[in-house]
This record gives sequence, C-alpha cells and structure tokens, in this order.
Amino acid sequence: MLVGVRSTAAEGARPDDARRHNREAVLRRLHVGGECTRAVLTAELGLNRSTIKAVVDGLAESGWLSERLPSRRSGVGRPSRVVVARPEAAVVLAVDVRVDLVSLALVGLGDKKLGQDSWPLRAGAGAPGEVVTQVVDSARVLENELGVRAVAAGVSVPGVVRQADGLVRKAPQLDWTDVALGKQLKDALRMPVAVASDGELGALAEHTRGVARGESNVVFVACDVGVGCGVISGGAVLRGLGEFGHMVVRPDGRECHCGCRGCWETEMCEAALRRALGLPADTGRGELIVELRKPAADPPAALARFEEFASWLAIGLVNVVNMLAPELVVLGNLLAELPRPVLDAVAAQVGERSMVSRAVGHTRVVASELGAEAQLVGAAELAFGPVLLDAATGAATT
Amino acid sequence: MLVGVRSTAAEGARPDDARRHNREAVLRRLHVGGECTRAVLTAELGLNRSTIKAVVDGLAESGWLSERLPSRRSGVGRPSRVVVARPEAAVVLAVDVRVDLVSLALVGLGDKKLGQDSWPLRAGAGAPGEVVTQVVDSARVLENELGVRAVAAGVSVPGVVRQADGLVRKAPQLDWTDVALGKQLKDALRMPVAVASDGELGALAEHTRGVARGESNVVFVACDVGVGCGVISGGAVLRGLGEFGHMVVRPDGRECHCGCRGCWETEMCEAALRRALGLPADTGRGELIVELRKPAADPPAALARFEEFASWLAIGLVNVVNMLAPELVVLGNLLAELPRPVLDAVAAQVGERSMVSRAVGHTRVVASELGAEAQLVGAAELAFGPVLLDAATGAATT
Repeated sequence: MLVGVRSTAAEGARPDDARRHNREAVLRRLHVGGECTRAVLTAELGLNRSTIKAVVDGLAESGWLSERLPSRRSGVGRPSRVVVARPEAAVVLAVDVRVDLVSLALVGLGDKKLGQDSWPLRAGAGAPGEVVTQVVDSARVLENELGVRAVAAGVSVPGVVRQADGLVRKAPQLDWTDVALGKQLKDALRMPVAVASDGELGALAEHTRGVARGESNVVFVACDVGVGCGVISGGAVLRGLGEFGHMVVRPDGRECHCGCRGCWETEMCEAALRRALGLPADTGRGELIVELRKPAADPPAALARFEEFASWLAIGLVNVVNMLAPELVVLGNLLAELPRPVLDAVAAQVGERSMVSRAVGHTRVVASELGAEAQLVGAAELAFGPVLLDAATGAATT
Repeated sequence: MLVGVRSTAAEGARPDDARRHNREAVLRRLHVGGECTRAVLTAELGLNRSTIKAVVDGLAESGWLSERLPSRRSGVGRPSRVVVARPEAAVVLAVDVRVDLVSLALVGLGDKKLGQDSWPLRAGAGAPGEVVTQVVDSARVLENELGVRAVAAGVSVPGVVRQADGLVRKAPQLDWTDVALGKQLKDALRMPVAVASDGELGALAEHTRGVARGESNVVFVACDVGVGCGVISGGAVLRGLGEFGHMVVRPDGRECHCGCRGCWETEMCEAALRRALGLPADTGRGELIVELRKPAADPPAALARFEEFASWLAIGLVNVVNMLAPELVVLGNLLAELPRPVLDAVAAQVGERSMVSRAVGHTRVVASELGAEAQLVGAAELAFGPVLLDAATGAATT
C-alpha cells in the first residue's frame, strides 16, 4: 500500500511481480483474517476465480495452505470448503524486551501461538549481551520442547531503532545506546531478525488484530515504566519514529532523565500512576494493576484521584491529535487499565480541547484489547512480513 | 514505495502492472531529475537496456519524451543523445491559497513554469466561493495567454484536508470549516483537482526539488500568519496530517484562537517575529522580510532580539524531533529568513536538548532554498502524480 505522495523515482518492476503480489495477498488475507472460502478470496481481493484457483493450488502444493470443511457450519446444504493457512508452514519467534521483563513466543502462520516464556529483567541485568544470550537459550529450549524451528524473529524494544539493521540507537530506560541488537540476535539465532520500537509494534498489533483493524489513521499510546507510541498513517505503520514520551508538555515540570523538564513521560507513566493512587514507589506492576482494576465505589473520588494524571495524559493527547489528526487513539498497557470514568474524562477533554479532533469529526479514544500482549503480537507480525513475501516468491515450506 | 510495515491485505495485481511501473519510473526520473542518457536510465532504474529502449520509444511515440543532443557537452567524442520530458506534453495548474494571498502557476512536465499570477486576499475576502471564482478566472486567462490547457490541478491550503476529495476540514486562519474546495474547483475547472495542506506540499517540494532531496525522514516547518508542517517518512510525504502549530508548548501562554493556551503558533508566527523586531502590528510581510534580511551589525544584539522567539521555535522543534526522529528539519517561508546566527542558535538548542537528535546522530536544521515558492512547487508535484500514472498506463498526450 502506498502511503502519501511518492516523490522519488520508483525502481523498475519485473513481470513476475504480479504473480508474487497475488500470492502474497492471498497468504496475508488468510494469515490476518483467518480461514475463508475461495469465493470470499475472489471477492475481497478483486481477482478472478481462475487466478485465485491458480494461486491457492500453488500455495497448497508448496505446503502453505490447506483446504478443509469449515470449523463452523452456516446455512443449509453442503458447506463450501475453506482455505486455511497452515500454522506449521512457518513459525516465527516473537520477542518483547521491556525495561523489567523479557517475553518471547513461538507463533505459527495465522497467529497460532505455540508456546511462550518470560523472565524478569532485574535492574542492571539488562546488559544487551545477557539479554541476547537469554533469548537465544530460551528460544532453543522452546523450539525443542515444541519440535518446531522458527524461520525469522521479530523483536520489540522500548527505544529508537534503526530499521535497516535493528540497531537500537537509544533505549533510555534500559540505558542502551547504539546496541547492535538486530545483528547480535541474527548471528546467534541464525535467522533473519527485525527489530522495532514497542510503540511501533503496539500500533502494528492493534491495526492487524486489535481495536484498530480497518482504520487508516491511528495513534497508539502506551505506558509502563516509560511511554511508547506508534502511528498508523494511510493504513501503514510508520517506522523509525522517535520517543513521544519526550515531548515536553510542562516546561516547568519534573526533571527528566533525558535532560529536559516536564516530558510527557515524567507526568504520564507507571510512577505517576502510583503517585495518583498513593502507593509506595516500590509497588510492583501486578499490585498496581490490581489497584487500578478495583471497581470505583465512588466515581467522583476516582476522578479526583486521577485528575492530575488524566490532565497530563489529555494535554499530550491533544498535542498528538492536533499534529497527526488520527481518527482513533488506542491507549495500551497500563493506560488500558485506567478506570472507565477516567478514560471517559480523558476522551472528553481531547474532544473539547483539540481543534483537529473537532475538524476530523471527533477522534475516538479507546482502550486496547490486546493489553500487555500487544508488543508480542506486533513482533510476530513484524517477523511474518518478509516470510510472507518469501512465500509469495515461490519458496516451499521446510 | 512502501512505507513502514504493511498490515492490511494487499489488493490483487494484474500482469500489465510491470509495464506501467516501468513507464512511470522513467517518466518520473526525467520529470524530477531532468534530462539524461538511456545509459543513465538503465543504471539508475535497474532495468535492462532493451526494457529501457522499449519504454523510451513507447513514451516518445506517445509524445511524452523526446531525444536530443545534451544541453551541456561533457568529455570528448560524439556526445550521447539525452532523453528529455516534453514540458508541453502535460501542463498542470498549481494553486497556493494563503491566509492573505493566492498564487497560481501553469507548470509543464519537468517542472517548467510557463506563467503565473497572484493577488492579495483582503481580510474577509477569503470566502471560499470567491476564491474559487478568482482561481478559475485567472487560470483561464493564463491558459489563453500561453495557449495551453492544464490537465490537472494541485492546491495548497493552510489547514487540515481530507485527502480523498479535497474537503478542507478546517483552515483556522481562513475561518473555513468543511469547505468542499476540491469538488468546487473540480466542477468549475473540469479537471482532476487534488488538495493538500501547505505543510504537506512544502515537504513534498523540498523533498522533490529542494534541500531535502534524497532524504528519507524529514520534517518541514514553516510560518507566515500561522504555522504549516509536513513530514517525509520512509521517503514519502505523509498525507492527512493535522496542525503542528496547535501543539501546546507553553500551557500558561497566550490564548490561541483554537481555544487552547500557548500553542506553538501563538509563540512562533509572523506576529511573534514583528514583536521580536519591535515592529507595529500592521507591518506588511514585505517590510518584515526586509527587516529580517538586514545584516546584523551586532550579532549578539540580533540573538538577544530573537531570544524568546528562537527559544519557542527550538522547544517545538525539540518535541517534533523527539517524536518523529527526522534526520533533517527544513525551516520554510519566514523561518528561512531568520538571521544566520539565530538559525544556528536554534539548531544548537535542538542538538543539545533533544535526546532523539543525539540518538540519530544529530538532526540537521537548515533553511529552505525554495522559500515562499515551496507550496506552489509542491502543488504542481501533487497534480503531476496522477498525470504521470495516467501517462504510464499508456495514454498519448493531447
């Protein structure tokens, strides 16, 4: 999909591009949308029946797809057979490196989670080499347990990433600068590795499998220790973004580790949530979430508790909405745990104060449904991207 | 060009896509990069010589290209003939609607400006219907004078635009809300009309023909009455952006017409420049530019005069750079007229204060070379986009 106006010379195309394009479209439809009949493929992809037949037969022959009776019957008469992506045709490794936790999963084609593992990162234990070793060890153990081999990996990190080679230019909360995470993991895992920021992958996950499905212009904002943001523009995830958490919203505010004062992240993060709830600074995330989920016996009191937090969240969102004009804002991770009246109050403030929200017909502000899983889902999708392209060029499954 | 990670199903492709793609690549190369030999086309576009021959011969036959001896000789021996886009093969109408001025130009293929016109918009005279009538009248007069007919139009407006139909959702400084500018102009001009914001088209112009050529990630920031911004991400202009000028940088600052306080636009605009220079509020733009261009007899005094303006410009840029991680920031229109020591001081502040600038190897901050012409250049490029695509599908010139 083209985003925006192309302003540079396009490279030349070869005649077999069309075949590859069609194979990729079919695979992607089944991977993202799940099983469907050939008739549905024909209608949704705007290709004729004979093309769909050729593409499906070819992909089935190479082991990427199979056909079967549908899992759910509908209507009367003999049910049409459905085409389905074979999970075992391609397994990817999804890795989510957080400030205090690493998670990984093996995921089969069609988003079939086959197994997962996670471990805490103690303060100071987040040295890149150690993280790489732990990820590789855990991935190999999981592969052996499940009897599968991943063909590619996708990795989420809380920082600024160079797309070309997965160099983590800056992960401030991990204190990483210019860490060649992509290359180190690629060498150790011996498979293609793609790295992106937690915000980018949150946005990708919500757009592919979450509350932002089918939307063209979306901003994803999440917080735990820090803030992660991602943007869908014209239906595609923007890569190579910076750190929305270091937008200054309060020039006379708290000092931030980045050297500025009053960054969004200093006013809208896990620590600020603990302050709002009057919890000690060493309260764990689990306990914090329990507190956040407690039904508010007294909604006005809940609103009062979160008034300052909500106000800085809203000010930052007004800025982001005014700048990027999304139709939808998805609040992820801990923000998705905010009590409903607080979320509603934030959405109302954005609607009232953002001129651009009013201009685009009121930007909706909703909580993520994927929650803390979003980065892992997004990392799997990141890894599947080139795998589907390879499949489309004609490779058979292993 | 693909931007980011595709996360939706692609539509099917047809086999003649490759031919169209190659024709478009050749046309675009000549339109943007100027005349060159077949050998250069072969090398730059990564196509073989016979494909280039077929494409060039086909486009020449349809009247889009011609071949001739180069305008400049280089080396010894018989010079190779060069391929050149024929300006008369396609002429577009470029329109730049500003808060106080409308400009238009007729531009031939290869960015050959054939003629132009402009007139002031007096306060209150900016009613959309009146602007449409004036544009249509002026365009027809210019076409008759020059003996050409435009085949498409591109329009710049200072506001938020819906890409699909050129609906101006909000142009705050013109006091336009939901103005069907695209449709009205299309009906009156009887040609395809594309509308985009001044910031988007400034970015497109700088990326195609200005200081941002060849860059992948760029932010364009300009001011006159208001602020206009555009973004190049992964080599393409983002469409459908909002209003960066309504990012709140100073929560206790001046009241903005949008209802917030301390928007970037209230601290960084033409009025703020007049305040910095101690000029009366009714000083015209011409006089303001004369004052800005006066060589500073005393650079420290110049810096002191602009200290507050430069500081708010820098704070906003720090936010934008932290969020979008561009390698390059282009300052356009009146910002490009700031005295050199002031520009240098702003660039230094961004470098010192933006964590993400440091992370990506220091974002450069430079002045536009296209200046106030950027929007007109961008509007022409916007119009040429579909024209080149049509040409690529095989239409002959009129």
